[in-house]
Amino acid sequence: MDISSLAGLGLAMAAIVLGAGSGMGALIDMPSFFITVVGSIGGMMIAAPKDVSFKFFQAIMMGIKEPKIDAVEILKTLYSFAEKARREGLISLEADLEELDNDFMKDGLRAAVDGTDPEEIRKILEIKMDLFEAEQGKWSGVLNTWGSLAPAFGMIGTLIGLVLMLGTLNDPTTIGPKMAIALITTLYGALVANIFTLPIAEKINRRTALQVNLLRMITEGILSIVSGENPRLMEEKLKAFLSPDDKKKYESEKEG
Amino acid sequence: MDISSLAGLGLAMAAIVLGAGSGMGALIDMPSFFITVVGSIGGMMIAAPKDVSFKFFQAIMMGIKEPKIDAVEILKTLYSFAEKARREGLISLEADLEELDNDFMKDGLRAAVDGTDPEEIRKILEIKMDLFEAEQGKWSGVLNTWGSLAPAFGMIGTLIGLVLMLGTLNDPTTIGPKMAIALITTLYGALVANIFTLPIAEKINRRTALQVNLLRMITEGILSIVSGENPRLMEEKLKAFLSPDDKKKYESEKEG
Amino acid sequence: MDISSLAGLGLAMAAIVLGAGSGMGALIDMPSFFITVVGSIGGMMIAAPKDVSFKFFQAIMMGIKEPKIDAVEILKTLYSFAEKARREGLISLEADLEELDNDFMKDGLRAAVDGTDPEEIRKILEIKMDLFEAEQGKWSGVLNTWGSLAPAFGMIGTLIGLVLMLGTLNDPTTIGPKMAIALITTLYGALVANIFTLPIAEKINRRTALQVNLLRMITEGILSIVSGENPRLMEEKLKAFLSPDDKKKYESEKEG
Amino acid sequence: MDISSLAGLGLAMAAIVLGAGSGMGALIDMPSFFITVVGSIGGMMIAAPKDVSFKFFQAIMMGIKEPKIDAVEILKTLYSFAEKARREGLISLEADLEELDNDFMKDGLRAAVDGTDPEEIRKILEIKMDLFEAEQGKWSGVLNTWGSLAPAFGMIGTLIGLVLMLGTLNDPTTIGPKMAIALITTLYGALVANIFTLPIAEKINRRTALQVNLLRMITEGILSIVSGENPRLMEEKLKAFLSPDDKKKYESEKEG
Amino acid sequence: MDISSLAGLGLAMAAIVLGAGSGMGALIDMPSFFITVVGSIGGMMIAAPKDVSFKFFQAIMMGIKEPKIDAVEILKTLYSFAEKARREGLISLEADLEELDNDFMKDGLRAAVDGTDPEEIRKILEIKMDLFEAEQGKWSGVLNTWGSLAPAFGMIGTLIGLVLMLGTLNDPTTIGPKMAIALITTLYGALVANIFTLPIAEKINRRTALQVNLLRMITEGILSIVSGENPRLMEEKLKAFLSPDDKKKYESEKEG
Repeated sequence: MDISSLAGLGLAMAAIVLGAGSGMGALIDMPSFFITVVGSIGGMMIAAPKDVSFKFFQAIMMGIKEPKIDAVEILKTLYSFAEKARREGLISLEADLEELDNDFMKDGLRAAVDGTDPEEIRKILEIKMDLFEAEQGKWSGVLNTWGSLAPAFGMIGTLIGLVLMLGTLNDPTTIGPKMAIALITTLYGALVANIFTLPIAEKINRRTALQVNLLRMITEGILSIVSGENPRLMEEKLKAFLSPDDKKKYESEKEG
Repeated sequence: MDISSLAGLGLAMAAIVLGAGSGMGALIDMPSFFITVVGSIGGMMIAAPKDVSFKFFQAIMMGIKEPKIDAVEILKTLYSFAEKARREGLISLEADLEELDNDFMKDGLRAAVDGTDPEEIRKILEIKMDLFEAEQGKWSGVLNTWGSLAPAFGMIGTLIGLVLMLGTLNDPTTIGPKMAIALITTLYGALVANIFTLPIAEKINRRTALQVNLLRMITEGILSIVSGENPRLMEEKLKAFLSPDDKKKYESEKEG
Repeated sequence: MDISSLAGLGLAMAAIVLGAGSGMGALIDMPSFFITVVGSIGGMMIAAPKDVSFKFFQAIMMGIKEPKIDAVEILKTLYSFAEKARREGLISLEADLEELDNDFMKDGLRAAVDGTDPEEIRKILEIKMDLFEAEQGKWSGVLNTWGSLAPAFGMIGTLIGLVLMLGTLNDPTTIGPKMAIALITTLYGALVANIFTLPIAEKINRRTALQVNLLRMITEGILSIVSGENPRLMEEKLKAFLSPDDKKKYESEKEG
Repeated sequence: MDISSLAGLGLAMAAIVLGAGSGMGALIDMPSFFITVVGSIGGMMIAAPKDVSFKFFQAIMMGIKEPKIDAVEILKTLYSFAEKARREGLISLEADLEELDNDFMKDGLRAAVDGTDPEEIRKILEIKMDLFEAEQGKWSGVLNTWGSLAPAFGMIGTLIGLVLMLGTLNDPTTIGPKMAIALITTLYGALVANIFTLPIAEKINRRTALQVNLLRMITEGILSIVSGENPRLMEEKLKAFLSPDDKKKYESEKEG
Repeated sequence: MDISSLAGLGLAMAAIVLGAGSGMGALIDMPSFFITVVGSIGGMMIAAPKDVSFKFFQAIMMGIKEPKIDAVEILKTLYSFAEKARREGLISLEADLEELDNDFMKDGLRAAVDGTDPEEIRKILEIKMDLFEAEQGKWSGVLNTWGSLAPAFGMIGTLIGLVLMLGTLNDPTTIGPKMAIALITTLYGALVANIFTLPIAEKINRRTALQVNLLRMITEGILSIVSGENPRLMEEKLKAFLSPDDKKKYESEKEG
């Protein structure tokens, strides 16, 4: 679980509930929910690729579930592989490949062990990085689309409500309550956009950037191993990819 | 037919109809339709290239009709061509070209069979990719333009309605209904933008990205065949272009 | 004349006129016109380069007048030049240069005939392409600036109208008409932006993209002629630059 | 002085004054001026680099003062230098350097005379171009920031006015005038943004683009001189950097 | 401390306080503060990476605290290193490394002293630059996200207030004050966005650009030292990275 996503969701909803106070019930209206949420999901399904458009709930969960990304562990593994390859030859890594649970590193190293040309390995890994980014972007893209359509459908709902209300102004005392209901769709649109979709899309995008940085580190590491570079030099180069926190952690674990 | 586009259109319109309920009739107004839809089509025609601007309906249909894109099938074809070229020579592919229904692959392979320089083949195929992207972008661009003009013409209609209404406030009881009609153009503008144009433009753009990825795969495949690369290595490289789903499908079909 | 621009202008204005109906007269107000149109032209003149800022009318005309772009004709010319150069030598093209009315092709070919280094020719033609794009962008840029300032000056006019009206609310019956007049500037701003400037700027930009594509085709063609490439291969490469429609036209004219 | 900037400022302000008519006095309110203009200057100072943030007036003046950019003169100078260098050797240019008032050309040529490697000269000149662009962008950036904050502070002022007014609705007859004052901040924000900041920032940016184009011409010219290229060929290449107007002027002055 | 940030904050808040005058108390409302500020912090925590999202206060402080960036000092150091390396060999710099407090320069020079290949040094330093930019961007990004969510939560608060108010219009005299409170959340959202987040994010971004420019200068300097380039030539090249002010300062200090 991604703690900051969960805490953020909690805080944002607490702010709404406390802001509404005892009037919370007045903010709930099923037809408004239908027109805003279902309508904007409809719009999103028009825009989204087929394989993604029926899985919007899964897209939201992507922002809340947290994939394990341990850059320190990966650098250690690459370092130990580099040393082993130097001592016992590249071929000696074959036995270790099966135990790797990082598919990107596994595929790259297998290609290396198979004797593929380094330039080809780089090309394959770069295509894989591009595809990974595109895959991730598909999910955040769906949430961004939803997040931009939700306020639009909220406004559509409010406009429908206003037109219906203004057309039949026979009883002035009902203007207020009717207008209140008309405004609820705009409120729902803003909530969907600013709590459940846009921030989660941004979390996915930022996480993807970190993951791609890691894939870049792995690529450099594998190519360094293939070229038989000094493991210390490789380590120095790969440490540049670590965030300040991870760098400190790596160095303290190495000494410890 | 693109199921998610159709389902999305259905959902979005259901949301509107159910939201309006029995007041649906009050939302229909032909002059408002004229000012918003015809006006924004006019604006779009000013902006669009001549060969596209009279075909806005065709642009919408592009988002609903679904072109067959079978990456798995294409990879299989390329693999079998690579094997045949290795066994019987590049020239042996000539007989297979006529049966190909993918023009891009056909043109690229014919150039290969004709003995064109690999660097020239890459250049030609890259120009073709650029042109394909530009062609597709012309259609999504027209819808995006329309989608940004529709709300503007909706607002223009509402402003005209308000000015006319405010200028002749002799009977206060008619304010409501007149204002209701004035707002309908804004509603129409929002519907055109958020259901019929912007989401469809986005679908076209996302689909184009997938198709260009496929063209890139074909380009790499043809160049690999020309250079007489090992078909297994080519397969490994091209598999990197497949989405996770397609990759699984390809591997299971290969084994099966 | 660009038919789709003219038809679009007609449609958009028809929508406005029909939408206003018999109230058209109420939408015309000279001070509002002055504050919105003259004010935004003032803002545009601050922003625009000196040599463009007094020619905004010419910028609008650029979107309506249609330059002749005949890609098919150009490809035919290049093909015939390639054949002649192959048969009779590059120098034989000198006689044909004078008759060319395409300055870009003429300058490039003259440089070729003069024996300029191919890499230099490419460099010169690329600078010319950049400059052409910048020149065109100057005109569309002016219209885009105007189009973003017009609604702002419309809002400024409405705010001035509201402030003046609210400051002297002595007679409630005059509120309506005064507010109507205040809103007219916003209406004018929306009309200037969405009919006369932004769509025309977009047309210029899209046309420029097509023209640059053509210049790229000419560049490749000239370099191909200089390098003495087979005219058939050059033709194949240049055909990739044609749109699907032009490609069909070129092929049918060749056969015919 | 930049005539179009001055004329634009005049036109825009004339539009405001004529639009307001005899009510001009009602549009002037010192507290509103303070909250909008001083507040947004405050926001801009938070955002801007320290060395720029106290010089916002100077930034505005940059758009009104017009630096002399004479591309024709520069091309003539480069051409005469190229001829002299060819006749009398690169070293002969040393005497002419002191009289140059274009620092960029002077530094580049001095490096050339000093025998610096052409690749190094290009690198130095490209860094200088980047820095020049960054310097200019700092000033236009400050105006853009101010221009986006001014409407925000206008809205903040209006919100404060509305909250204060709505909280004490004891006398309905004062609503109008109070609301008029509340709206004045929004008006001021729009005026600051659309007359004094955003258009001037755009003028600076467009002028910078022209200047960078000129620096690029000078760079190509110097490198051509260093490599001992034929002055006629250099002239042909550099002419591609001239705008159509400047090109005509250059050619007529050469003949004359 | 960054003087312009502090002065800007002071000016902006003075504008608000003076604008509100004696009505300042009416602008303070704790539930509105909660819904807007806490709600938008919640949204920001959903969007932000985990290691940043609990440190929004630290992000704000980054814009106010001013890191020491002394380009002149760094250029002097690099020049003295270049001279020493030329006289006594690259290895002689080892003793000076410990005293350097610029980690980037220290790591780069150590790699140089260790005999690392120049191309590798460039690669490592470029990765470090990218990572530095990403790190800084994480902080400004968090503030930008917060700044775009705050007005949205302000609007959410206002919508909740309006819905609750309109639903219970039993006493017309309470409309004003209730609406005043509803508007306060929109006001808070605008204040958070336009004073505390967006301008500070921009300051961080602009400062990062200056710092990256400096890192680029250091990189060029180290590579120049490694290649044994003439210190005068290196100085000339690196001076191109200085701003006009710093250049003047550097030259006067050198002479002095």
